[in-house]
Formats: sequence, structure tokens, C-alpha cells
Amino acid sequence: MRIIRFEHQDTVRYGQLIGEQIFPIDGDIFGEFAITAQALAQHHVKLLPPLIPRHLYAIGLNYLDHVGELDFAKQLPIEPISFLVSSQAVIGHEEYIILNEANCRIDEEAELAVVIGKNGYQIAESQALDYVLGYTCGNDVSNRHRQNQDGQWFRAKSYPTYKPLGPWIETSLDPSDLEITATLNGQIVQRGRTSQLLFSVPKLIAFLSSFTPLYAGDVIMTGTPKGVSNLQNGDTVEITVEGIGTLRNFVKMN
Amino acid sequence: MRIIRFEHQDTVRYGQLIGEQIFPIDGDIFGEFAITAQALAQHHVKLLPPLIPRHLYAIGLNYLDHVGELDFAKQLPIEPISFLVSSQAVIGHEEYIILNEANCRIDEEAELAVVIGKNGYQIAESQALDYVLGYTCGNDVSNRHRQNQDGQWFRAKSYPTYKPLGPWIETSLDPSDLEITATLNGQIVQRGRTSQLLFSVPKLIAFLSSFTPLYAGDVIMTGTPKGVSNLQNGDTVEITVEGIGTLRNFVKMN
Repeated sequence: MRIIRFEHQDTVRYGQLIGEQIFPIDGDIFGEFAITAQALAQHHVKLLPPLIPRHLYAIGLNYLDHVGELDFAKQLPIEPISFLVSSQAVIGHEEYIILNEANCRIDEEAELAVVIGKNGYQIAESQALDYVLGYTCGNDVSNRHRQNQDGQWFRAKSYPTYKPLGPWIETSLDPSDLEITATLNGQIVQRGRTSQLLFSVPKLIAFLSSFTPLYAGDVIMTGTPKGVSNLQNGDTVEITVEGIGTLRNFVKMN
Repeated sequence: MRIIRFEHQDTVRYGQLIGEQIFPIDGDIFGEFAITAQALAQHHVKLLPPLIPRHLYAIGLNYLDHVGELDFAKQLPIEPISFLVSSQAVIGHEEYIILNEANCRIDEEAELAVVIGKNGYQIAESQALDYVLGYTCGNDVSNRHRQNQDGQWFRAKSYPTYKPLGPWIETSLDPSDLEITATLNGQIVQRGRTSQLLFSVPKLIAFLSSFTPLYAGDVIMTGTPKGVSNLQNGDTVEITVEGIGTLRNFVKMN
């Protein structure tokens, strides 16, 4: 099932997307809800990011071929490298990524994003997928100059508009072997498979929840494969995850 | 004014502390509120952390004499090093810090913690203190092994109980030159003054809000002076900030 979030007649709602039709949802997508019968056409609503995460976790260096691609990230992690980025940076499908600095390398990062569906703490790896509502495409846009300068990656990845998520949440998906690509102006720059993740989705959920409670509405961005590329004013960047769809964003200079 | 948060007859409330008496507050401490006339004795209530921050920001290496004290932190920052830690790790006065690993250096860090009082974005340094509700004592407990391993400091500083805040919020305080100390079992181990901050409270607010919106209920932990010391099972650690008071916590092994 595809869950989209949209604005229609000044109201923000969730809906189930079937083809080009949206069936609005009554209730709480993390709890009890019902799907209504009166469909809206997708082109009549304004698509929004599928959620503003309660906590937005990022995972560093989680594909072998990306480790070593950047100067400050040469060493293979022995456990996941986790950190929080700002939920305030989230934008949705077809919104603009606004580059915050000129003459500075700012890259896309294609990622599978996991939407946590229920609260949990110290979750067993074998139970981890029970805590997932679904998956969406994520773009972990990163200012390399500030990432390198700060050492801590929070600021470099938390500028306004730097966390595109979308276009929707796909709830019926096995995350173990999905192709993930990034294209820049139609050319593929990143291509990987989630089977190449150093730490799989269940391992990441078990790891994070071993030391901090996870909540419904938290999102985990799972890391990016090789090929991260410099974004320029006027670019179009697309992140595609097999079984979900394509998250498209346009790039402009501040 | 001292604002404390407490539980009394199964209800969580704020109150003004005057001497040993608490005058409960009706309303929103970040908005409109009134102080009631019927006092409670402090020893009749259970003290709680002064707030669970919406976002809990930490600042690394913000005292000159702390830079170089640790292996992984040798270089003077040219801008504040900021990152998010987990609000879920917050505990209050006289609660237990639970060490999450044996045979591993886990330190206290005495800090002035700033409680943001109203929402703001791109706040001018000259206006920054208008966005502060008040100040409390913070202890930025840090697992040095995990901090060094991860490179990203989020996990090392986000284990449950690792973020003591309290005992209350002091709203009438000039943050520019306050003494800050940590004692371990009664012996002073850290002593500094906020006048030695590399980036002052107004500079930190201007810096953070330059790239991410700040909200009422956010907290900024401003960094720690030299002398961070290993916590052991059975220790008592106290953080004192001049003009606020003393945050006391007990230490036990998991």
C-alpha cells in the first residue's frame, strides 16, 4: 500500500494512492485508520513530504563502495555510525533543494529511508521489521565543506531543504535487496542494492533501539552507495528505490 | 525567577520556587501563565527534569582549555561544532546516571544549558538573549570509547540517563561570566567561567538559528571546561553554575 500525504482545500491529510487516485485516510496512519471511498485525482492535490519525522536518524558509511570515496570517511565502521539530523530540513517530491553556499561541494546521497511504525526499545533483530510502517526514498544532501570542517555531520546535512523524502510511503516491501539509484539530469550517478548494506535494516533498528527508544514517526536514513555527485544550480536530481518509486527534486542556488 | 517542574498527586506541573516553597504555575511557561498563591513544600513533591527538550543541541570544544584534553579533539574550532543528542537521555536532579559499559571511560561534563523560550530563525546576535527563557545546569555525560569509535558523538552522549538537567530553570541571569564547576564525591574536578566560552551564548543562538529554526523548549548545552573525569559506580557528581544552583546525580553500573 502506498500512503501519501497531501494538502487539499487547506487541509493536510493522508491517503492511499492507487494508480493516479487518492483515497483519503481517516484516523492515524500509526494506529487505527480507515480508507474512505471518495477518491481525489492526484493532480488536484498538493503532494507533501510523507511525514515530518519525530527523530530523523542518519547512518554514515553503510555501503562498502562509498567508504573511502570521501577524504574524511576512510575507515570501515565496526558498528553503524549513527547521528541525528534536523527534521526541519525535510522537503517533499518536486520541491527545490536550495544550495546554501556557492563554490562549495554539495552532493546528493540516494538512500532507502525506513519509517518506524510503532514505539520500541531494545528491539531484537528478528522482530525489527514488525516495527516498520514502510519505506520511502531519501536524499541525504550534504555540504562537504561543512561536513569536513565540523567533523560532526549534523550541520552539513541539516540546512533547510537538505532532506528530501518521498514521494510516498510504501508499506508492502521486503527491504533486503532493492535497487537504489540516483540520477542527475537524467544520467545515473549512483547505483547500488540494499543487499550491499554493511548493516541491514533489521540490524539498524536493533542497533539504534539498543541505546535509544524508537518512536512511531521516526525515520532512519540507511546510508548511500558510491557515486555521490556535486549538485549545481538548475540540476534535477532523482532518487529511485525499487518497489517504491522516484523522488524528484530541483536544485537552485540560494 | 526559578521555575521547577514536579510531580504532585500524579500530575506533572511547573511551579515557581521561592526558598523551599513551590507556587504552582497555571498555563504555559513558554506563553501565558499565572502563578498561584497556594504554596507546596518542596519536600512534598517529586522533582522532575525542568523540561524534556524538543531538540537538545550540544556544542563541542567550546572552552579553550578543554580542547586538546581528549585524543579525538585537538583542533580549535573556527565556528561552533554543533550536533543533536537524544532528549530521551534526559534525567533530573538526584536521579541515577547508569553507566552503560564497564572498563570504559565515561566522563561527566559540566555545562551551562540554555533553555530557548520562543521560536526564532536567523536570530541576530544582538537579539539572541530575547529568545532565552532561562538557564539550567547540564551534565553532558560521555562514553569516550564510543565517542572515539563512532567519530560522530551522538551515541556516546545519548545513552539513557546521560543527560542530567536541573535542578530548575533560572530566568533572571546574565550568562556572560558565570562560574561553572563539577565536583566528584565532593572534590572539584572542573572549574571554568562562561566568559571563557569560545562562542558565547548569544553567538551560539545566532549560529544555530542561522541554519535551523529554534523552538521554545529547545535546549543548547554550551560546552565544558577542562577537567572531565571518569565516573565510577557509587560516585556522586555535582554540577554547579553560579546564579542557578547545583545539579546532583548518583552513579551506578548497569
